[in-house]
Amino acid sequence: MNFSSKLLEDAVAEFSKLPGVGQKTALRLVLYLLKQDKAEVNKFSNAVSKLRNEIQFCQTCHNISDQLVCQICSAPKRDRSLICVVEDTRDVMAVENTNQYNGLYHVLGGLISPMDGIGPSDLEIDTLVERLKNEEVKEVIFALSATMEGDTTIFYLNKRLKPYNITVSTIARGIAFGGELEYVDELTLGRSIATRVPYENSLSG
Amino acid sequence: MNFSSKLLEDAVAEFSKLPGVGQKTALRLVLYLLKQDKAEVNKFSNAVSKLRNEIQFCQTCHNISDQLVCQICSAPKRDRSLICVVEDTRDVMAVENTNQYNGLYHVLGGLISPMDGIGPSDLEIDTLVERLKNEEVKEVIFALSATMEGDTTIFYLNKRLKPYNITVSTIARGIAFGGELEYVDELTLGRSIATRVPYENSLSG
Repeated sequence: MNFSSKLLEDAVAEFSKLPGVGQKTALRLVLYLLKQDKAEVNKFSNAVSKLRNEIQFCQTCHNISDQLVCQICSAPKRDRSLICVVEDTRDVMAVENTNQYNGLYHVLGGLISPMDGIGPSDLEIDTLVERLKNEEVKEVIFALSATMEGDTTIFYLNKRLKPYNITVSTIARGIAFGGELEYVDELTLGRSIATRVPYENSLSG
Repeated sequence: MNFSSKLLEDAVAEFSKLPGVGQKTALRLVLYLLKQDKAEVNKFSNAVSKLRNEIQFCQTCHNISDQLVCQICSAPKRDRSLICVVEDTRDVMAVENTNQYNGLYHVLGGLISPMDGIGPSDLEIDTLVERLKNEEVKEVIFALSATMEGDTTIFYLNKRLKPYNITVSTIARGIAFGGELEYVDELTLGRSIATRVPYENSLSG
């Protein structure tokens, strides 16, 4: 592209680095910002730089937080005997939105993925084991993606947690609510038949 | 959404204001930025704030520029008797990329659109008329979108330019190169039959 201004070119180049944003989209976003008030645009750029420079991660669960200990970890009403292990903060938000969970979390910060060079030492796994030693945890729930990386991580974590004699569970897999059988993939349908549950159990929750 | 951090929420809110970016996309972009180096993120936010605070518009053609007079307007090799009237800087880039045009530009900054409350006085129309008085312009080419707003703007401009005895033209409309007849809409096809050109003319350019 032939940019008429270096400032414009720089801003487009920066936006193009974002995931899923190509040069044309970047240019559209930048031209949109150019049409806004200076105060608005400064608010935008301040929000971005403040985010990166001032954000903290909870010392206990490693979720994104404004304080040293996050709101969930410091809430007195939460069930401290339950820890839900998730990949990142988006998953915490997803589980919180269900209003079905009242325990604590542990954010790994990723999944084990040898292809991407991510091993157990890159994740918050040692700190999870530390928590099991120091806190009175009865159950650990793995709420990880149903992918190769998720399964690998669960397999590894399960081995690491064995010595501590804690109930370990994973969230249920099967067909989604509202899912029509003919559109469900074979693997999911096959597994959901193999792991069928008594009718009475399926009604709870 | 339940955000675990005010800083995160603010940044997501700012990104959500961008056109075509919803809350989920905004969160994805913000989490991506969080994983980058501080220097990278500061580069991003600086590029945005510098853009809005330091950018200039060419005094002559009103295109985005780093100087008071843009590179195109100050280039000695350009044909100063031709002015191509476009909506915004993206259109300048599009015409420049064709390598088929060697004249000057005039950027209106929008199109007349009563529905959006944009009238002739909101656009750089008076400055275009000024240029015709002061510069030796022989032809004005309208390269505006083939929409209701584009047509309205051309209609208005044509009336304003009448007194100056200048050749006024619009870019050709018709089926695109590589376009298959069966997929062309009726309006375009009908008009392209009505405004057919002698075969010899269609070969030039």
